[in-house]
Amino acid sequence: MSTPALRQPLARVSGLSDHYRAVRSASLALTSPLSPEDLMVQSCPEASPGKWHLAHTSWFFETFVLREFLAAYREFHPDFHWLFNSYYNSLGDMPAKSLRASFSRPPLADILAYRTHVDTHIDRLLAANPNPEALRRITLGLHHEQQHQELLATDIKHALFTNPLHPAYLPPLAASPADSIAPPLDWIAFPAGLTQIGSSPAEERSAKDSREHEAEGPASVIDFAFDNESPRHTVYLAPFSLAARPVTCAEYLAFIDDSGYSRPELWLSEGWTTIRAEGWQAPLYWHPDTSTPSGWRIFTLRGWQPLDSSDISEAPVAHLSFFEADAYARWASRQTPGARLPTEFEWEHAAAQLPCPGPGSNLLESSNLHPIPASAASGLQQLYGDVWEWTASAYTGYPGYRPLPGALGEYNGKFMSSQMVLRGGSCVTPATHIRPTYRNFFPPSTRWQFSGLRLARDGQ
Amino acid sequence: MSTPALRQPLARVSGLSDHYRAVRSASLALTSPLSPEDLMVQSCPEASPGKWHLAHTSWFFETFVLREFLAAYREFHPDFHWLFNSYYNSLGDMPAKSLRASFSRPPLADILAYRTHVDTHIDRLLAANPNPEALRRITLGLHHEQQHQELLATDIKHALFTNPLHPAYLPPLAASPADSIAPPLDWIAFPAGLTQIGSSPAEERSAKDSREHEAEGPASVIDFAFDNESPRHTVYLAPFSLAARPVTCAEYLAFIDDSGYSRPELWLSEGWTTIRAEGWQAPLYWHPDTSTPSGWRIFTLRGWQPLDSSDISEAPVAHLSFFEADAYARWASRQTPGARLPTEFEWEHAAAQLPCPGPGSNLLESSNLHPIPASAASGLQQLYGDVWEWTASAYTGYPGYRPLPGALGEYNGKFMSSQMVLRGGSCVTPATHIRPTYRNFFPPSTRWQFSGLRLARDGQ
Amino acid sequence: MSTPALRQPLARVSGLSDHYRAVRSASLALTSPLSPEDLMVQSCPEASPGKWHLAHTSWFFETFVLREFLAAYREFHPDFHWLFNSYYNSLGDMPAKSLRASFSRPPLADILAYRTHVDTHIDRLLAANPNPEALRRITLGLHHEQQHQELLATDIKHALFTNPLHPAYLPPLAASPADSIAPPLDWIAFPAGLTQIGSSPAEERSAKDSREHEAEGPASVIDFAFDNESPRHTVYLAPFSLAARPVTCAEYLAFIDDSGYSRPELWLSEGWTTIRAEGWQAPLYWHPDTSTPSGWRIFTLRGWQPLDSSDISEAPVAHLSFFEADAYARWASRQTPGARLPTEFEWEHAAAQLPCPGPGSNLLESSNLHPIPASAASGLQQLYGDVWEWTASAYTGYPGYRPLPGALGEYNGKFMSSQMVLRGGSCVTPATHIRPTYRNFFPPSTRWQFSGLRLARDGQ
Amino acid sequence: MSTPALRQPLARVSGLSDHYRAVRSASLALTSPLSPEDLMVQSCPEASPGKWHLAHTSWFFETFVLREFLAAYREFHPDFHWLFNSYYNSLGDMPAKSLRASFSRPPLADILAYRTHVDTHIDRLLAANPNPEALRRITLGLHHEQQHQELLATDIKHALFTNPLHPAYLPPLAASPADSIAPPLDWIAFPAGLTQIGSSPAEERSAKDSREHEAEGPASVIDFAFDNESPRHTVYLAPFSLAARPVTCAEYLAFIDDSGYSRPELWLSEGWTTIRAEGWQAPLYWHPDTSTPSGWRIFTLRGWQPLDSSDISEAPVAHLSFFEADAYARWASRQTPGARLPTEFEWEHAAAQLPCPGPGSNLLESSNLHPIPASAASGLQQLYGDVWEWTASAYTGYPGYRPLPGALGEYNGKFMSSQMVLRGGSCVTPATHIRPTYRNFFPPSTRWQFSGLRLARDGQ
Repeated sequence: MSTPALRQPLARVSGLSDHYRAVRSASLALTSPLSPEDLMVQSCPEASPGKWHLAHTSWFFETFVLREFLAAYREFHPDFHWLFNSYYNSLGDMPAKSLRASFSRPPLADILAYRTHVDTHIDRLLAANPNPEALRRITLGLHHEQQHQELLATDIKHALFTNPLHPAYLPPLAASPADSIAPPLDWIAFPAGLTQIGSSPAEERSAKDSREHEAEGPASVIDFAFDNESPRHTVYLAPFSLAARPVTCAEYLAFIDDSGYSRPELWLSEGWTTIRAEGWQAPLYWHPDTSTPSGWRIFTLRGWQPLDSSDISEAPVAHLSFFEADAYARWASRQTPGARLPTEFEWEHAAAQLPCPGPGSNLLESSNLHPIPASAASGLQQLYGDVWEWTASAYTGYPGYRPLPGALGEYNGKFMSSQMVLRGGSCVTPATHIRPTYRNFFPPSTRWQFSGLRLARDGQ
Repeated sequence: MSTPALRQPLARVSGLSDHYRAVRSASLALTSPLSPEDLMVQSCPEASPGKWHLAHTSWFFETFVLREFLAAYREFHPDFHWLFNSYYNSLGDMPAKSLRASFSRPPLADILAYRTHVDTHIDRLLAANPNPEALRRITLGLHHEQQHQELLATDIKHALFTNPLHPAYLPPLAASPADSIAPPLDWIAFPAGLTQIGSSPAEERSAKDSREHEAEGPASVIDFAFDNESPRHTVYLAPFSLAARPVTCAEYLAFIDDSGYSRPELWLSEGWTTIRAEGWQAPLYWHPDTSTPSGWRIFTLRGWQPLDSSDISEAPVAHLSFFEADAYARWASRQTPGARLPTEFEWEHAAAQLPCPGPGSNLLESSNLHPIPASAASGLQQLYGDVWEWTASAYTGYPGYRPLPGALGEYNGKFMSSQMVLRGGSCVTPATHIRPTYRNFFPPSTRWQFSGLRLARDGQ
Repeated sequence: MSTPALRQPLARVSGLSDHYRAVRSASLALTSPLSPEDLMVQSCPEASPGKWHLAHTSWFFETFVLREFLAAYREFHPDFHWLFNSYYNSLGDMPAKSLRASFSRPPLADILAYRTHVDTHIDRLLAANPNPEALRRITLGLHHEQQHQELLATDIKHALFTNPLHPAYLPPLAASPADSIAPPLDWIAFPAGLTQIGSSPAEERSAKDSREHEAEGPASVIDFAFDNESPRHTVYLAPFSLAARPVTCAEYLAFIDDSGYSRPELWLSEGWTTIRAEGWQAPLYWHPDTSTPSGWRIFTLRGWQPLDSSDISEAPVAHLSFFEADAYARWASRQTPGARLPTEFEWEHAAAQLPCPGPGSNLLESSNLHPIPASAASGLQQLYGDVWEWTASAYTGYPGYRPLPGALGEYNGKFMSSQMVLRGGSCVTPATHIRPTYRNFFPPSTRWQFSGLRLARDGQ
Repeated sequence: MSTPALRQPLARVSGLSDHYRAVRSASLALTSPLSPEDLMVQSCPEASPGKWHLAHTSWFFETFVLREFLAAYREFHPDFHWLFNSYYNSLGDMPAKSLRASFSRPPLADILAYRTHVDTHIDRLLAANPNPEALRRITLGLHHEQQHQELLATDIKHALFTNPLHPAYLPPLAASPADSIAPPLDWIAFPAGLTQIGSSPAEERSAKDSREHEAEGPASVIDFAFDNESPRHTVYLAPFSLAARPVTCAEYLAFIDDSGYSRPELWLSEGWTTIRAEGWQAPLYWHPDTSTPSGWRIFTLRGWQPLDSSDISEAPVAHLSFFEADAYARWASRQTPGARLPTEFEWEHAAAQLPCPGPGSNLLESSNLHPIPASAASGLQQLYGDVWEWTASAYTGYPGYRPLPGALGEYNGKFMSSQMVLRGGSCVTPATHIRPTYRNFFPPSTRWQFSGLRLARDGQ
């Protein structure tokens, strides 16, 4: 089975129109191994059916771009305006999220026709030299779609895992990589001082975008940030060190084997309550398997893998809740005094000095669909891709934060409570969707994403 | 759109083999208006996806017939044995019912192949002159499948209603029937005395079946009863009267308009708690609609219908919980002293004297897929078909009741707590599946079936 | 510590007035070992604080007797009318049951003053030669209070058990009875036939009461029945046998030791779900104790007792849910074919032939506060007292059942769904409160009452 | 009714021993208007019974001081060690919090004896010139007890409110204050820059304490901080302004009247979900009252008060969740661009420049037991007392934060997820318990504390 789009090298797109086509077709490529029935499954409250992702991302362009900026635009279907609204209360009522599993109608064929309809009209709009706000909205819509590509990958992983037959999304990679061992944990030190965090306000960037768009340069594609990354502002950092790579499965297994899940002193109170109520004994997708030496096998998008193979055990551990990441760090601090999760500011300060993505970053386009072991190289590795890294920072607004005006202001701002920030993207994040200032966020008990951790510690 | 099997006249089948084919193909006919996506939806805890019904009914034949009685039978798939088990603990663990919505794999095509595989081997078994127990099991499996045909119809009705677009299963009937009014409520009196209730023990019947089967007569198809209908036993009945027809929508609307849902004195304590917790103001599938004179429209398998058209308003009210049926009867007793629900014994005593099904019984094969108004004829009407009738009887075992041996003993017996008996079948019950002694049962809060009521009263 | 009222021999009261005083003072005697703090505890949804029982029983007399029948009666407190209403919706809104744990005010002293106030005015009413309905209501109120005495005993047992210190209500009985062994299980056979079940309609009895009251005879005290025991009616019974005594703890332990709680085939579906959700492995109040030979100790109103002492192990097992009683019977049927729970009609038919209470009936006045072993005598034993016996009968209305008019109609009738009938009273039922026709009822998962079982079987 | 201890002026205690006696007797003074029954009520999951607070605060001294530092100390009761443990998993298992409502035993008299026992032995220990760690633990225990004094006040407020009779804790103040109007909202500006936040590490302070203790100075009482206030560290602040006083009830009423609770755009997503699920339309303890001009009355520890009296309406609004405080700020930003909640760093930076407590701070000792209006004075007011002020800061560890060693490390650190910081104390916070660096924290849906808000805005 071939998945051409996943393997497609990200050509430097020559402009927004090309990038639009590339992103939109990548969504379809992701669903190509899946049947209409697969695209119906909604296996946990966090997830949505794949078909819904395909529809909702089109809805976003129709609602925020075509209805506002394309003269005489006619909607594909009069009900889709409310049917595929996710959570924008300003636009009116919408179906409860749990109802999405009942959307057998419209059939997949209609959703694909909806996508074509939207694409045709975006093409028409782009050909008509639209105003800068329309271009900004299209760019936002593409990043929105890329977020949903990642969600589609993680949701289908959960759906296939929930199916008692545990089918694989794709077959295992034909040639297994040579036996690789993650390098010993190294620490990179950073001195104290003031640093600049976040992205410039959208209006400043957009002025720049607008000029660049005239020049048809690719920068307009890359130079994007969500409102929650603004404004760029000053933060004081005390001296700290950052681990050169994320924590691996093998390291995490040592925590498990040291009774990590049975020692309340290692856990936040809410975390302890959670793991006991849920019966968690290991990361999501780990399953006891007495037929393997390690005693574990792990479910991946390419099927079950024994934890014993080094490409699994030496890869960054994924599908941790914040509570588990935090407990691991507390456990590690017994050997490495001061070991903890980094703040999002420490993380960004370190990451800003590196190319994004890096040369070997394991992102969606690499088609691994799973984290891979770090290389033997020295210095900071795997900041981008592999696993989202839980930080010690709660998700709140930056000083002077202003949401976008109108319904788009609901995109990020209204989730600023009881969630933690994650940084760096994962193995299913599209390469053009990640950047040093990107703030992902989830409630601390969330595990269905590729979420892991990198240690930090105080001082140099 | 045609639905041949639904309209297919029930030919007197010449033997079990013909009947097997007829019942099995009726299941497929029921799903013919539905897509693979439709067959994925599971919209309430009581329901299952349509695809699951198609698989589980085949599983029943494979498990209880082919594996036991066909030499050298090879299973279609090694996992289906546990995957499609519904609730037979004796056979081992099974997936939680809620997981059925995740069964995108096996795809529908595999399930259809599974059905063919099972059918081929049942044919082979039947051709090999099997022993009587195998024949009894096949007969049981066909009644099991017919139960699931009814469930399939009610589950898909709920699924389509849950979809915010509320699509119809089939288009409205082309020619609407002439304006019909249900006759005024008449009462049929029955004197006191001893009566015989239930069916002879299975072993007695089966001895008779066995002889009849040799004669290839059709009786073996009809002469069937579940274990919970046995043993036939003596019951003393005080004098009672039974309403000649079920309660209509129009009559039920008078209850609603008389503040029926706001007066606690009309309700059982558990019913009052339920309607307040659920916010019930009317039967399931009734929706306020200020554009209609009655103020209501009703969702049917053939789409929305205003309550005002006489073929709806004069038809038996459906989709009531026991609590609503009971409250209606209490309300009615203010005008008709002693009005109440009949016991299942009173119902059966009356029904035993009538042909089953009757000449105009509105069952699945009539393709109305909704109750229809009573005729102007006098005497007991609509005992069979239209709506299941809630009785005042809790579902318990008859004196001397013995479940079937082995796993089949879990079929009926283990549900004998906290459920109420319903009698008579509904507009989606197959005609060869109903009989005077048939005991259906559901928890008293259940509404997704076509469940209504017929009044009874003490004395003559 | 002495508890005079509990030990007080039930003198044949010379009239309703004496009986009123005896019943009312028995409530206070029950609370005498308890502090105001103890009387605040509400440890499960079924239970109420002891203080509330003291208040609500007085409210019953005030509401249904004094306000209606005593001219110029002034309420003790203007808020008590709604504050101490339990569930009579006809009388207006009332506090949610769960709020009773917040009733620190009114203080216990006020409740005791309330009781005195009510008692004084009932005395005044009785002295004024009230009409028969007032006398009927007072009699009803006394039976209501006796029901609450039993609830008070079971609620305080649960409260003290919930307290992590597990304090005893009373000290152990000073002199332990001689070592006693329950006799082997004997069966009493009953032939088939018609029998009369239930009590005459209230109006018929009350006419009789009225005449007897003039004669100041004691019969008016005894000759009482709740509305749900009427009307007396004909029932046909097939031949059956009844066990001579209830199932003992030792017998039930054999069921546990035979993996009774781990074998789904022994359980109703709802029962299996319940014991797994709740983690039940034994009756309520049984606690594993490796320091005893049996491995169990049992919490009683007189403190912990090892299961090993014969006065515990040979006594009827108590604190079973219906599900456990039913599962035990199914397990027993493997050795005793046809073993099952009796119907309430079989039970009453057998009990009607015996004196009630019997000479040694273990009821509240015996002060054991726990079941005791059966004697060596032959014939039916322990029908009254010791443990309420779960029957196979769901709680529904008898043919022709009519609730009392007005709010009192809510007393029994509105609970006729999803509950099972229990018969015979327990070790904390007052002796003048039990009779052959008495129908107690609880949901099948209920365990906090002294509820056990007696086996029946088909045939003679 | 007098409450001497509440009104007792806080004398400058001459040493830890005097302070110990003062704090311990203040707990008893708080319970003096309450009965043993009142001290049993636990009316919401956040609260504990008053009796439990009296016991647990003694347990703290016994566990962390007497058992470790007083030679040959004998525990008051062998079970209290586990019975009154709140949440210290390191010390072993403890009863579930919800069980505290079942603690009718030990009776209140025993708890009072327990307090005396502990006090006697602490006296003995203090007389024996204990080591500095013992003194630090006693100081910690006193602050622990003061926290529980505040909780006792808020828990009993909730308990009395839950009681359907809504009794008052104390009578209204005899002389109502003169009609007072809160001054118009003024803003105090702060320039950008680096600032020092938090308290020095405990070990540094304790070295100082130790020296001061020898001198018997009072500083040891005051110079205390919890571990979560450390270490003192550098934070960069952008320019900001702080409102001179908290938001008043009258101002909050304008938000309600402007449909504040019906406009999703004003709310965090989690907040909108919460207010709809809970049905919140106003702060906790506000009750619609059509008999008042404002339409509202408010429950206070001194009984119901109409919102219309200026001492209520002009006082800071209390009993808000974080969600409500945040929604109010968003609503206010439409008139005051940039209006928002302050960060805890902004708050502390401003507060550090003011005396704590201030001359008229409305804390527990003022006996108002409710917020009072701001004075006409200019400048920052009411930072200390009246209401805890929700900040925009999530509760996390400061850079380099280390919990106390051992079980005491569970005091604060394990709650650092999904909670928000509040600052400044309330009208029921003891005066010696508050300081500029004090960090209170609660989940964002919490309302049973006296929690309100003060606005901030960007820039000067």
